[in-house]
Amino acid sequence: MPTSDLILRKRDGEELSSDEIVALVDGYMSGEIAEHQMSAFLMAVFFAGMDEREIDALTRRLIDSGAKLDLSDIEGVKVGKYSTGGVGDKTALIAAPLAAAAGVVVPMVPGRSRDFLGGTLDKLEAIPGLRTDLSVDEFKAQLKTHKLAFMAEPEDLAPADARIFALRVATGSVESGPLMAASIMARKAAEGLDALVLDVKVGSGAHMKKQVTARRMAQAMVGVARRLDKRVQALLTDMNQPLGFAIGNALEVMEVSQTLQNVGPADLTRLSLELAARMIFVGKITATLEEARELAQTKLLDGSGYRKLKDVIQAQGGDPRVLDRFELLPNATGAREIASPRAGYVSAVDAEGIGRAAAMIGGGREAPGGTIDPAVGVILEVKVGQKVDAGGVLCRLYYTSEEHVEDAAQVMEDAFRISNSAPEERALILEVVG
Amino acid sequence: MPTSDLILRKRDGEELSSDEIVALVDGYMSGEIAEHQMSAFLMAVFFAGMDEREIDALTRRLIDSGAKLDLSDIEGVKVGKYSTGGVGDKTALIAAPLAAAAGVVVPMVPGRSRDFLGGTLDKLEAIPGLRTDLSVDEFKAQLKTHKLAFMAEPEDLAPADARIFALRVATGSVESGPLMAASIMARKAAEGLDALVLDVKVGSGAHMKKQVTARRMAQAMVGVARRLDKRVQALLTDMNQPLGFAIGNALEVMEVSQTLQNVGPADLTRLSLELAARMIFVGKITATLEEARELAQTKLLDGSGYRKLKDVIQAQGGDPRVLDRFELLPNATGAREIASPRAGYVSAVDAEGIGRAAAMIGGGREAPGGTIDPAVGVILEVKVGQKVDAGGVLCRLYYTSEEHVEDAAQVMEDAFRISNSAPEERALILEVVG
Repeated sequence: MPTSDLILRKRDGEELSSDEIVALVDGYMSGEIAEHQMSAFLMAVFFAGMDEREIDALTRRLIDSGAKLDLSDIEGVKVGKYSTGGVGDKTALIAAPLAAAAGVVVPMVPGRSRDFLGGTLDKLEAIPGLRTDLSVDEFKAQLKTHKLAFMAEPEDLAPADARIFALRVATGSVESGPLMAASIMARKAAEGLDALVLDVKVGSGAHMKKQVTARRMAQAMVGVARRLDKRVQALLTDMNQPLGFAIGNALEVMEVSQTLQNVGPADLTRLSLELAARMIFVGKITATLEEARELAQTKLLDGSGYRKLKDVIQAQGGDPRVLDRFELLPNATGAREIASPRAGYVSAVDAEGIGRAAAMIGGGREAPGGTIDPAVGVILEVKVGQKVDAGGVLCRLYYTSEEHVEDAAQVMEDAFRISNSAPEERALILEVVG
Repeated sequence: MPTSDLILRKRDGEELSSDEIVALVDGYMSGEIAEHQMSAFLMAVFFAGMDEREIDALTRRLIDSGAKLDLSDIEGVKVGKYSTGGVGDKTALIAAPLAAAAGVVVPMVPGRSRDFLGGTLDKLEAIPGLRTDLSVDEFKAQLKTHKLAFMAEPEDLAPADARIFALRVATGSVESGPLMAASIMARKAAEGLDALVLDVKVGSGAHMKKQVTARRMAQAMVGVARRLDKRVQALLTDMNQPLGFAIGNALEVMEVSQTLQNVGPADLTRLSLELAARMIFVGKITATLEEARELAQTKLLDGSGYRKLKDVIQAQGGDPRVLDRFELLPNATGAREIASPRAGYVSAVDAEGIGRAAAMIGGGREAPGGTIDPAVGVILEVKVGQKVDAGGVLCRLYYTSEEHVEDAAQVMEDAFRISNSAPEERALILEVVG
């Protein structure tokens, strides 16, 4: 069947057969199906959706488009952690060490950030000396010794996913539940994971603005993971304000260190502990989730999560002293306070605006492959629900060049909403799927 | 604004500014906007639509993307006729001569058929010697002498429309009301028309399967035409069975001749007369539509429409005797009867199936630019509502090679539905828009 007919059928709401989906992926990779047909097909999927069987077929073909990591010679349940991405989200660097300290094998293979802000790799690379370009052998050796390692995604893993994802970024179909589910699950399955904890972000600072959309996407991911025989749990969590106080790679490493020493922000600590507990539970270290929560808490309080991250930094060539001596991290050269124009309660902190402002001063990539200035970023001084005086500091902008500071400061100020009455309290963890 | 953001905004239901639409068309033509971005944008429009202002902006930019035909030195209102395309639709070759015989200037600049069956140009080219590659000067001279001329679309007219249309064909966004409206209206405006009669087909053999979709599209076309200061009327007409009895280029020329001699099929005669009347009316030859209908009828009955077509065939180098001596037209070498498997009433004749069968034996293009065998085709022996005996002939397939005849015969037989009771009568002209 000609590709244009496959596009038409999907557009008009029909299901495609598994063979047809395989033909689309393979044809695209071989060059028989042109970019402009694939992009139109993906946009049709954005609107018309895909059912379970189609998502499964797509996921399996993406997995089979390249190499797979074989972690079968490493003992224990291999548990990953994946976030759909949010502003200030550094939970991977907290939950993974806590879970590893509790005995879970945690192979972390984060993709290079696909968002405008840095991802886990960028945060780690703010640490002087730290390498993320481990070979597969190094990665496996470190997993055996430390139960935790961070490796940049090898290029030969699920190459069809990488190509299709890049096309979706250029052509506006990133926020498709079925496509996101297939893409993420293909990648995680190719990484050799047995189980996975997903953090699906919802709100103004996330890809998914609405809880119903996020829930559908989480359900799709949990479904396809189960059918691939992976244990999986998904949390839907709020991203209507940044997580924690710090945004920016070096600043976030500092906040990670504080949080692993139990002096971090309440929201970040809470979510990291819950993610770690779920990793411990799906990793079969404990029999119940309650026990897993207690264990995660213990690993935070006794400092073993903190020590685990230090060991891992050292193992990957980084300077572990950065966790105590923040001056060893890249530092900004200037700071600018953003003051509240009036007294009142902080009723909203637009995560997307904050992220955009951080990107404007060099904290994000303008294009894939671009560089990020690890030193710059934002420290929030207030979060939603707090009282603020007129002229009180809302946040500080840390920069290394004055070039875009004025514009960024304006975007930043606009990101805060100050109201006369205290806003309703909002749950951080909205629901659990799976 | 980056193209990916324009795609996202359209996808999410936002209106684009006129400048943004201009930037899309111009960027695509200059190569700055890639095919895969444009195709995704077009698919987003398919789902999210466009409002009047956006359609106007798009139409105007398509018009301005190339040359325009200047017919201002030809006296009278220049009236075109356009059909969205249907199986067996040869009304252009009947209505245009009738209107021209009544005094309307009818510049016909049909595009090369974009469907699987032949278009007006292909039908005319079945006539030995007839040229459609007139120069603009020849076209204008013939319009002055005969008030009717058929010229293949010059390539420099609205080139952006041609490129975008080809992309839509390859990527599944042909059936978008706003895109069709902009495309057709840009083309007709670039052809120098003052007024236009549109025949918007609805049903299984048409692009638009549902009346509500066709109505929306007709309204969009009428709206944009008015805002371009063109007089326009649109008929929504039934395409749930082929129009007339003949499908196939030479066979359709024969039926055109019969109809212009008032011995043609009732449905074809009726619709052609109504289209001619509307052309006469928007061409300001008569003050009322009723008078226009009478005039069209007169031009049919007195044979002046028939003589007009003969003159035009001769003027364009064709042999006018074909209208009387059908053996001068390309003829099939074999025929195959399709018999009814049972007695009953013909309750449906699937126009799409009939068209597909005709294409299978060479009566259509497999790809744009391909050749069509003018001799082959189908003659229906029954139409919806007629009684048929078991073994009675439903239609005849005319072919020049036996290669695909068996398959085509099967598709053909499947296209007829025979029921026990007579079907409800169906209106041919469903409604008028404008």
